[in-house]
Amino acid sequence: MPTEVQKLKINYKTMEDFKHFKEYGAQELSMLEDLQTNFVEDEIDSPFYGIYYGDKLVARMSLYKRDAKYDQYFDPPQDYLELWKLEVLPDYQEKGLGTKLVNYAKSFKMPIKTNPRMNSRPFFEKMGFEPVTYSVERDLGENPLVWYPEGVSEQKRGIE
Amino acid sequence: MPTEVQKLKINYKTMEDFKHFKEYGAQELSMLEDLQTNFVEDEIDSPFYGIYYGDKLVARMSLYKRDAKYDQYFDPPQDYLELWKLEVLPDYQEKGLGTKLVNYAKSFKMPIKTNPRMNSRPFFEKMGFEPVTYSVERDLGENPLVWYPEGVSEQKRGIE
Repeated sequence: MPTEVQKLKINYKTMEDFKHFKEYGAQELSMLEDLQTNFVEDEIDSPFYGIYYGDKLVARMSLYKRDAKYDQYFDPPQDYLELWKLEVLPDYQEKGLGTKLVNYAKSFKMPIKTNPRMNSRPFFEKMGFEPVTYSVERDLGENPLVWYPEGVSEQKRGIE
Repeated sequence: MPTEVQKLKINYKTMEDFKHFKEYGAQELSMLEDLQTNFVEDEIDSPFYGIYYGDKLVARMSLYKRDAKYDQYFDPPQDYLELWKLEVLPDYQEKGLGTKLVNYAKSFKMPIKTNPRMNSRPFFEKMGFEPVTYSVERDLGENPLVWYPEGVSEQKRGIE
């Protein structure tokens, strides 16, 4: 069965699919509201990428490009990706789908920042993500992990 | 037994106390490192507030003042507090200690933003915190709750 990563079209089917994921919250409800106030489907720009088995959405992540001017993590400062809500449905785990999604994120060749839940930290570390030097001003309650493409390193300015 | 909220002194005893809390991570390890590289104790500025029973730290929270220039949540834009790691040790729950900490945070009369874990959302809502209108650019993977002091309302600019 082909399992390619694709950018998700936001329509009522996708919204129903989203209800199967644990991390369903304000973001999804907001998108549903946008959909309900627009007559044309599929026109909403979505930060979600996913993998289908047949017509069933079985894995997803959210990916958003942050502008270089907000970059407090990377040296040199540059556009980077924030990754969140990486999740594979229980029956489809251990098949490499999480790895496929993260490799897709890496394929943009931009640095990536994520703030994973405790139990997914080992997975991200296996994927080459590293902890940053903690800074209260910048990180507050987060313990982010980051991935550096070649030629990129930790920004020292952000932690001084 | 008196249970007053106090700003925590950062010394080796506090660092040992912190190990009893579930949300122990990069922030605590960074403070421990600061302590180890300084000879004088109690000199490190800490964002932690706590409640002791005798000499046992039984509840804590982290509170940090954000400058008005970073305010994307409140109208008019102003200095506000970020609250995180609110936690009461299991044997000391249901005694109003969490309420006492949050009331202490409110006593600064500044707006408060927090990004609580799912299971503590009802507590914060009972304490008068409200969800904000979700914005992907601003909130990404967060579903924050905020508290508005009198005269403060939701910032519309942040969600346009």
